Amino acid sequence: MACRCRRLPRRALFWVFPMLRIPYEELHQVLAGALRNLGFEEQRALLCARLFAETTRDGVYTHGLSRFPRFVRMIRAGRIDIHATPELLRSHGGLERWDGHCGPGNLNAWHGMDRALALARRYGVGAVALANTTHWMRGGAYGWQAAEAGFIGVCWTNTMPNLPPWGSAQARLGNNPLVFAVPRPRGHVVLDMAMSQFSYGALASYRERGEPLPVDGGFDSAGRLTSDPAAIEASERPLPIGYWKGSGCPWCST
Amino acid sequence: MACRCRRLPRRALFWVFPMLRIPYEELHQVLAGALRNLGFEEQRALLCARLFAETTRDGVYTHGLSRFPRFVRMIRAGRIDIHATPELLRSHGGLERWDGHCGPGNLNAWHGMDRALALARRYGVGAVALANTTHWMRGGAYGWQAAEAGFIGVCWTNTMPNLPPWGSAQARLGNNPLVFAVPRPRGHVVLDMAMSQFSYGALASYRERGEPLPVDGGFDSAGRLTSDPAAIEASERPLPIGYWKGSGCPWCST
Repeated sequence: MACRCRRLPRRALFWVFPMLRIPYEELHQVLAGALRNLGFEEQRALLCARLFAETTRDGVYTHGLSRFPRFVRMIRAGRIDIHATPELLRSHGGLERWDGHCGPGNLNAWHGMDRALALARRYGVGAVALANTTHWMRGGAYGWQAAEAGFIGVCWTNTMPNLPPWGSAQARLGNNPLVFAVPRPRGHVVLDMAMSQFSYGALASYRERGEPLPVDGGFDSAGRLTSDPAAIEASERPLPIGYWKGSGCPWCST
Repeated sequence: MACRCRRLPRRALFWVFPMLRIPYEELHQVLAGALRNLGFEEQRALLCARLFAETTRDGVYTHGLSRFPRFVRMIRAGRIDIHATPELLRSHGGLERWDGHCGPGNLNAWHGMDRALALARRYGVGAVALANTTHWMRGGAYGWQAAEAGFIGVCWTNTMPNLPPWGSAQARLGNNPLVFAVPRPRGHVVLDMAMSQFSYGALASYRERGEPLPVDGGFDSAGRLTSDPAAIEASERPLPIGYWKGSGCPWCST
């Protein structure tokens, strides 16, 4: 079957067959092929494609395949340099600072965790700071990377300001993703969540379905707590983590 | 003036003069004297007393002087060994594991952060795990210790199960304190908070005043979210962090 995925990158191409099941290996190869066509070196194309494909395979649809067209647009716009690799700026024992030179965010982040693991093997603990990088896509990928290697991993990144500090009416913080990973023989524990109670995507989804949020999700423009998603979209004042996310569970089970 | 504090330790002694102001240095010396009388060595008495006195001086009344009588009772009951010092069990680069041998929790914790700082100076990052210890009193003390030394510090401890995991009706987690400290020339940032939205002490306080909580603080025995403090005390199902605490602010500003 000639899969239309081969014609990547095309915007919104994947929404026309919402029920189509694509084997993981085929998805990986198609994405790797698209990256090769963009000029990625072979090993980097394979790893970058694997990170996108695994994210979708694992059900984190917001940060896998559906982000790929935007990733390609960022490359074509010159905002991601596909040939850039991280450069070590400073080092002191188990601590290192790197410059990502605006390379692909997921390859840069993978390299950062790889270095942290190497440092932890040598020094017991490793910490890597990475500046000048681009969107790392699924943060949990680097938690799984640590856990698969047998290490406890913690990582986070910044993002655009879209969350007010407590008591403020203005978004000055990002809903920065935070990742904790703990390896276990019976299955690793990996927490990967953003710092807002509901993402803007989730607010839009509730609004489109005409449903209120299951709990208050932010303030309206008058500063009152509300479960009306549209009022929170309008005020841009979502609440920070609480309820299930305050308990370290990314999904609502109410 | 003969201060009645000199008659320490006596249970609830401090509640008879709630408006009495005691100079910090006097408080420190009186507490150190009480510890000497219990058999503490000189330097350990001074440090232990300082940690209690500083906690009260800084306004964290729940974990300073008001905890001292309980601390003394624990010593007299043989549950805290005042002569025990931490023992190094294993070491690998910047990572160390220690046994606290049920020594005074605040002295053990101070030693743990002191070791973590020494390791960070040498290896860039230091991590210390401390087992068999007793209540560390004010967790933030060790965050301030790190920040004063010019280091970012993160520390936490366990406690009794008093918080249900999300979706459970039974308390299986502790509302474990979590501390983040970041040194800054214009004043350090130190976050020190437990993992429940309201402490049991806060719930009791609202109930005694006949006030509802400012936001839902837990579930009642039927599993409904409620702002009735008595209902949450009865169900033992407080909510985890959210609202101001989800934003890294320990105090409610609504």
